[in-house]
Order: sequence, then C-alpha cells, then structure tokens
Amino acid sequence: MRMVDLIEKKRNQEAHTEEEIKTIIEGVTNQTIPDYQISAWLMAVYFQGMTKKEAFYLTKAMLESGDQIDLSEIKGIKVDKHSTGGVGDKTTLVLAPLIATLSGKMAKLSGRGLGHTGGTLDKLESIQGFNVGLEKQAFIDQVNDIGCAVAGQTAKIAPADKILYALRDVTGTVPSIPLIASSIMAKKLASGADVIVLDVKVGDGAFMKTIEEAKKLAELMVSIGQDYGKKVVALLTNMHEPLGMAVGNKLEVLEAIDTLKGGGPKDFKGLIIELASAILVLSDIEPNLEIAKDLVINTLESQKAYQTFKAMVKRQSGNIDAFLTKKVIEKTILNAEDEGFIKSINALDVGLKAMHLGAGRKTIEDNIDHEVGIRVLVKTGDRIKVGEPLLEIYHHENQVIDLNEYSPMIKISKEEVAAPKLVLQTIGI
Amino acid sequence: MRMVDLIEKKRNQEAHTEEEIKTIIEGVTNQTIPDYQISAWLMAVYFQGMTKKEAFYLTKAMLESGDQIDLSEIKGIKVDKHSTGGVGDKTTLVLAPLIATLSGKMAKLSGRGLGHTGGTLDKLESIQGFNVGLEKQAFIDQVNDIGCAVAGQTAKIAPADKILYALRDVTGTVPSIPLIASSIMAKKLASGADVIVLDVKVGDGAFMKTIEEAKKLAELMVSIGQDYGKKVVALLTNMHEPLGMAVGNKLEVLEAIDTLKGGGPKDFKGLIIELASAILVLSDIEPNLEIAKDLVINTLESQKAYQTFKAMVKRQSGNIDAFLTKKVIEKTILNAEDEGFIKSINALDVGLKAMHLGAGRKTIEDNIDHEVGIRVLVKTGDRIKVGEPLLEIYHHENQVIDLNEYSPMIKISKEEVAAPKLVLQTIGI
Repeated sequence: MRMVDLIEKKRNQEAHTEEEIKTIIEGVTNQTIPDYQISAWLMAVYFQGMTKKEAFYLTKAMLESGDQIDLSEIKGIKVDKHSTGGVGDKTTLVLAPLIATLSGKMAKLSGRGLGHTGGTLDKLESIQGFNVGLEKQAFIDQVNDIGCAVAGQTAKIAPADKILYALRDVTGTVPSIPLIASSIMAKKLASGADVIVLDVKVGDGAFMKTIEEAKKLAELMVSIGQDYGKKVVALLTNMHEPLGMAVGNKLEVLEAIDTLKGGGPKDFKGLIIELASAILVLSDIEPNLEIAKDLVINTLESQKAYQTFKAMVKRQSGNIDAFLTKKVIEKTILNAEDEGFIKSINALDVGLKAMHLGAGRKTIEDNIDHEVGIRVLVKTGDRIKVGEPLLEIYHHENQVIDLNEYSPMIKISKEEVAAPKLVLQTIGI
Repeated sequence: MRMVDLIEKKRNQEAHTEEEIKTIIEGVTNQTIPDYQISAWLMAVYFQGMTKKEAFYLTKAMLESGDQIDLSEIKGIKVDKHSTGGVGDKTTLVLAPLIATLSGKMAKLSGRGLGHTGGTLDKLESIQGFNVGLEKQAFIDQVNDIGCAVAGQTAKIAPADKILYALRDVTGTVPSIPLIASSIMAKKLASGADVIVLDVKVGDGAFMKTIEEAKKLAELMVSIGQDYGKKVVALLTNMHEPLGMAVGNKLEVLEAIDTLKGGGPKDFKGLIIELASAILVLSDIEPNLEIAKDLVINTLESQKAYQTFKAMVKRQSGNIDAFLTKKVIEKTILNAEDEGFIKSINALDVGLKAMHLGAGRKTIEDNIDHEVGIRVLVKTGDRIKVGEPLLEIYHHENQVIDLNEYSPMIKISKEEVAAPKLVLQTIGI
C-alpha cells in the first residue's frame, strides 16, 4: 500500500492494521516517507482519532523503532514514573529515593527542561558535581546497590517518536490524544520497568486543559501499558497553580529535600503520598492502599528516604554539603496589595517568568542558571492580608525586578475560594 | 503570524483573513513554507472546509501568484470554457469554432491528458502538422481574425496552484470542494475571459461522484467568478457513461467534425447545444435561451461552424485533408452475447482501457498514440439483440485484443432501463 492510500484510509476514518502502522513508522524512522505525507497523515489522525488497538500498534511500532532498555539485571520490581509536565514539578527527586527506601527499584531516565517546564536533570545539576551521564552498567549497579539512580538517556529510545514530535510541533498536530499517548508510552515501555505510574497534569499550566481530555489520555495510556503486559496506574492531578512552592532548579531541590525530611509544601507532599502509595499497591509491596499511605508518611518522617537521596547524590558524585551551605542569591518579595482570598495563581506565567529569569530554556541551545527562580508563598484558597508576602523572586544583583510584571499572576478575590483538590482521579487501580 | 499558527487556526475551524491566505500562497509560491506545513494545512482545509470568502481569497491569491493573460486586444466578448474532465470529452473542439461562428471569441488555452482522461492539445495533434505552440501575438491575431484559437499555455499561470496540486495529489487532499474550486477558478480567471462556462461532470467517470458534491462545487465556482466580476454559468452533466461514442484522439476529432457538420452522437450534440446556448445568453449575443438553442442548431446544420474549424486548423498549420484521407487502423468488434437493455457503461474503465491501448498517458512522460481508441456504439437505455456490436476497438496489427477484458465494461439488463439525462442542472442563469 502506498503512503497516499494510507493517508486516505485514515482520512476516511478507517482503522489501520498493525502491518500498516508498522509500514508508516518504519518509513518515518528510515526517512523513506516524505515529511509532507507524514504531516498530512498526522493531521488526518488529529481529526479522525485512533482506536485503542491502533494506538497500541502505534506505540509498539515506535518503541520497536529504537533501542529497548534491558533492566533484567536489576533485582526486584522496577518502577518508572512519568509526568506530562508542569510548573514546579520536582516529584522524581523525592519519589526515586522514597520508593528505593521502600524496597522498590527506580532506574529513572530523565530529560531536560524546555519552555515553561523544568527538567529533572537540570534540577539535579544544581548540586555541585552531580553526574547525570551514567554508563549503562554503572546505572544498573547503582540501582542494585542503593535502589535508585537518575540519569540522562543515552540509548536511542523511540527515534520515530522524535521525528514525529518534531513534525507535530510545527504542523499543529500536537494535541491529539492517541499521538500523545503513544509518544509517552513508547518511551516508557522501552525503558524496561515493570510498574509505571503516570502523573497526568490538568489545567492552565499543563498540556491537558480539561479533566475530560486528561481522563481520555490517561485511560488510553493505561490500556496501552496493560496490553503490553505492564502494571500501570494514572493519576489526574491539578496544575492550575504551580506544584509546591518552588519553581527554579536549586529552589526545587531544596524543597524536595524538605519533603524527603518529612516537611515540604502540603500539596506537593500530598501528591508524593498518592503516587508512592499507588506504586506500592501496584508493585504488591503493600497491597492495601491505606496501609501503603501510612508506610509512605512514616518513611518520610523517619528521614530514611532523605538518607537514600544523599546516598544517590554521593554515588553520582554530587556534593550535598557544598549545595546546602552555598549562600543564596538576592531575593525580591511581592507583597499583597489587597486583602481577601487567593483566587488563582497562573502556573504557566510563573513558569515563563522563571524561564525568563534564567531558570529555563527558551530554545534547546540555551544555558540555564541553577540559582534563580520563584517561590510562591501562597496557595489558591489561602486568606491573605495587605502587606503579606505572596512571591519571592530569587535573582542576581544585576537583574532588575519589576514587581508590576509579577503581580498579575496572582488574582485575589473578596469572596472565599475553595482550595482545589490536587488528585482529581485515579485510573488503573 | 507563523505558519503553525495559521494551520492551528484552520484546524480549529476559524476562517482565514485575506491577508493570511495571501501569506500562505506567497509562502507556497516562493517555497518559503516547508511542504510538511502546507500539507498539514491542506488536510485541515479538507476537514474544516472554507467559507465562500476564504475560497475567493484563495483563488485571488493563487491567480495573482503568476501571470495574468491580457486579452484586451481581442475585440468582442471573450469566452472561456472549462470541463472538470471526463471520458470522450471533445467539447472544446466543437465549441470553439461554433462560438466563433456565432460572433463570440474563444481564445482557449488547453492542456494535455493524463490517466483516464484525454487532453484537447493531444486530440488536435492527431491532425498532421497542427501547431499548439502559438506565440501570444499570433494567438491574439488569430482570434481577432477567425474568432477562435486553441493553444498550449506558455505563461506561468497560477504557479501556486501547480505546487499545491502536486502536494494534494500525494497527501490525500485532492477531494476538497474549496481547493478544487479555487484551483480551477484561479486558472480560468487568470486566462482573461469575460464569460466562463463550467462543465461539471458527475458520475463514476468523473471527479465528483454525486450530484450533491457537484452542485456544491459548481455553486462555489460560480460565486467566486461572479465576485471577481465575471459572467459565469455551470452545467452539471452526466459522466456515468462516456460522452459521445469516441474515446481516443483521432477518433474524437472525427466525431467532433461529424458534430460540426450537424451530425454526431445525440448526447454529445445535446451537450454542445446546452453549453453554446448558455454562452450566447451570458454574452448577450442572444438573451433568449430558446432562440439561442435554435441559433446553435441552425449554425451546426449549416456547416458554417465546420468551415470555422477548418479555418482554425489551417491557420494553426494542420492538414485536414491528410487527416481525413489517412487509412484507419485495425478494428476489433465486441458483440453482445445477451439481449436486453444497456444498464451501464463504465466510463472510467473505457478511459483506462483506451489509455492502456496507447491513447492516454500513465505518467506525464509517456508518449501517446493518436490512432488507437475505442468507439462505444451503444448508450445506456438502448435495446440490443444478441450479436449486435457494442464496442469498436481501434488498434495496431501487433496489438492483441482480448475481448474478455472489454465485455465487463458494459452491463446488460433484462428489464427496461431509462436513458439518463445528460444535463442535470444549470447554475448561474
């Protein structure tokens, strides 16, 4: 079948066979199908969607287009976690050592930040000396020894996805549920874990703007993973405001450390408890969800998870003492000019502001500044008085901060505002 | 606005402004917009359609992307005609000299055949010496002197359309009403005529399979042309069976000559009368449609139109005597094996069979054979007896004809079959 026939088939809302999807993805990977045909097909998929079966075939073909990571040398249950991206999301920094402490294994391949969202590797690199470039054997040995490792991806995982994503980005075909689901799941399934926890963010600061969309995406991803023989759970979580308080690399690591020591912002700690307990249930480490939650809380409060974090940092050549003692930079504070209740905190704007300060990258070539960032001191629903601090902006002396650019990010209402629920729904358990 | 934003706008079913469509078409023409973005936009247009206004802007931008033919030196009302393509369509060969004889001016730029449909230039070239490569001044002088000329296009008419069409052809985006309408009208409007008659074919052998689709296309084209200040009429005509009897270059010219002499197949003659009388009304040469029809019939029967045809052939260096005296090639006849009524004659299959004999081109590089072709001796609804001839296949001695390949094209029914109407609807007058 010629590619034009396959485009027409999808255009006419007929389902592709496994063979057809394989043909397309092989043509994408080998670059034997021209870009203009791929993009027309992507737009047809945008409009006509895909069946669950087609999305599964697409995921399978994409993951088979590249390397698959063999974690069989790691003893125990291998856990992976994916977040669809948000502002202030430092979850991996806490979850990896926490799960390791609870006898799971987290061999985590992470990425870098772009635009308004940060990347786990960038955050860890704010710790002096931290090495994210682990060789395969060192990575596996570390996980066997201390239960967790976080490193950059060196294998050629799902190259077809990389090509498709680059095209989708410039052809208006990013927001398609089956294309997003298969893109995420191809990479997750190629990474070799037994248990996969998906954190699907919903809201202004996230990719999925409504709970309906997010639910569809989550259900499709769980179904693809289960059809592939994996244990998968997805949590729909709120991203109308930043997660936790800190946005910016060093600030986020500091907040992760607080949380690993049993403290940390309430919303972030709550998410960690939900994600970690779901992992414990799915891994059969603790089949009862309520007991699992208690176990997680106790582990955080015992500071055992923090010990594992320190062991991971040391093993990956990071200097935690230097990190903790280094003087923090300038900070400018935005105070409330009205009294009332916090109505909204625009996560996207906070992310973009942090990026402009230097905490993130506008383009893939940009360098980042680990020190700068923003701490959001309030949460939606909080009651505040005039003069109370809302934001701390961390910046260098030579950076001029105009607070008028920051104040519109936080809306204050005279009427009482309900604090939003963080975890909106759980799919898969 | 970036192209990706324009794609997303169309994808979200928002209408483009004139400025936006100009930006896109300029980017297509200058090749500054990559093909993969154009094809994604085309697929979005396929799904979301266009408003009448957008289609007008698209037509205008495409016609302004290239040369526009200035026919102002031609005295009188300039008439152009376009057919969406069919099997056995030799209309221009009769219409040009006929309208010229009736004091209209037909300065016709024509094309070549591809696939199952033939091209007017190929047909005329079956006349020995016929020159379709007229320079602009010779073309205009000829129209002023004898009222008509048929030549190949040398100007760069609507280059954006050429690029878009090539992309549409390989990306499943050909069958889009606004894209088809603007592609046809950009070329017609750039050709400089005052009066435009559109012959929109409907049926298995045509591009528009249903009357509903054809009507939409016709209405949009008439509206675009009228908005551009032209007089436009569209006839929806039946293309479930070939037009007339002859399919193949020389055979079609012979049939055109029969018709110009007052004879010719009934359906083809009927179409000529409808098209020509619509032109007379639109041109104000004869405002009354019934009188116009009589005028056309009389002109054909007087053989005056044939005299104009001969003058055109002579002026374009063709040798009509050599053409008419040259011995015809071998012919093999398919006879009816059943008695009954002709239920259907598959126009597409007849066109493809003629192409395979050599009358048409599989690819743009192929040469064609002017001599070969098929004559369909029956029409839908005809009563036939066993042994009566159905088809004449004209071929060279070395071509082996397997009649079993031809017999399935004609279906015979025991029950009576109504003869189909040729002109289904007229839009614009």
